Amino acid sequence: MQRPRIPALVVLSGGQDSTTCLYWALDQFGADAVEALTFDYGQRHRIEIDCAVKVAARAGVPQTILPINTFAALGGNALTEAGIAVQSGVNSRTRLPNTFVPGRNLIFLTFAAAFAYPRAIHHLVTGVAQTDYSGYPDCRQTTLQALEQTLQLGMDYDLTLHAPLMFKSKADTVLMAHDLGAWAALADTHTCYHGQQPPCGKCSACVLRAKGFAEAGLADPLVERFHAPP
Amino acid sequence: MQRPRIPALVVLSGGQDSTTCLYWALDQFGADAVEALTFDYGQRHRIEIDCAVKVAARAGVPQTILPINTFAALGGNALTEAGIAVQSGVNSRTRLPNTFVPGRNLIFLTFAAAFAYPRAIHHLVTGVAQTDYSGYPDCRQTTLQALEQTLQLGMDYDLTLHAPLMFKSKADTVLMAHDLGAWAALADTHTCYHGQQPPCGKCSACVLRAKGFAEAGLADPLVERFHAPP
Repeated sequence: MQRPRIPALVVLSGGQDSTTCLYWALDQFGADAVEALTFDYGQRHRIEIDCAVKVAARAGVPQTILPINTFAALGGNALTEAGIAVQSGVNSRTRLPNTFVPGRNLIFLTFAAAFAYPRAIHHLVTGVAQTDYSGYPDCRQTTLQALEQTLQLGMDYDLTLHAPLMFKSKADTVLMAHDLGAWAALADTHTCYHGQQPPCGKCSACVLRAKGFAEAGLADPLVERFHAPP
Repeated sequence: MQRPRIPALVVLSGGQDSTTCLYWALDQFGADAVEALTFDYGQRHRIEIDCAVKVAARAGVPQTILPINTFAALGGNALTEAGIAVQSGVNSRTRLPNTFVPGRNLIFLTFAAAFAYPRAIHHLVTGVAQTDYSGYPDCRQTTLQALEQTLQLGMDYDLTLHAPLMFKSKADTVLMAHDLGAWAALADTHTCYHGQQPPCGKCSACVLRAKGFAEAGLADPLVERFHAPP
């Protein structure tokens, strides 16, 4: 029996987590029902968007890239401003890393909902995770639940937010990607805060990623790609 | 005794309602504690932003204009696309006017919160009203309450959303503007869906505005401006 087509939209950043979620969505909703939405919000490193394009192309899903010029205009954080160094330490007032962009995931998911609305898409998939969330309050389950309700009320529209990695460790996410057939795609992803390929291996994002693969007992396809025998 | 300075941010569109809210905020928080945030989101009529600039200047409050290029990229609604005629009728699927931009107020208030966060502003003021809301679900009190909770959780930040016009009729809003000393400022505001000054007087926005003034028993300073004796 053919299953009914239930369309879903994945917010795809080009990183490991959202790539894994894309394959989760393909598994859940079917290859013909998934599309990807990527935000061009003034990332310091354009390589993130290049990676998202590669990942979507490899998976064969339609992709839309939406611009957001507002974060750059707001200014003041290390993810969009070239003049601000990424610091693993924390801001003294907010106790958050200086990569924190207030409300970034709220904005991404609200625009994703606005994109989904006229297309009659009722399922949004995001790669946020509470486990390794570095203190980002917009990655918490409670935030996502409140946002889901806000979007339902604010658009008068039935919408479900899926965060399949919410309570997974990085190691579990690695194993999940492996099981879902996302392995080759992981070689196309981007994690490094310094925008380097091969990844610098030293920034907090690279270290966290390496830890996940180490704990899962598997080699990172991205690292392998740059160390493959000639 | 001097009252403590509690800073507040008003989302100022250049329309009648947000202008009235600006004067409400000046009354509540004091002249030295209020600033205005205006979004340049690809409005069909640049006159709205011009009006917001005039209103902020007349009130003597600092104003920031933040760009949002995403709505225009999303497309498909009459408020940002020149090719789509404003229809007072309703969309057959959504039962909403085609001026509905899904999530528009959610986005505005989330960016306002992101603007407020590094400035330690804990009070946001918006002119949305449930009474005359034309079916816009993001103008409802329930939506605003859910959004307030989402912003508090998502930014881990104490934030209050004020919507002083939420349950007021247009006539009450007119009387409120009069009492708050916003009368001269109303002559600088913009309402007409067709972007005309003098206002067309025929579109649903003009008709609704005229009805409010008529019910309040007062002449609209904007209309008066264009009919003043030479």
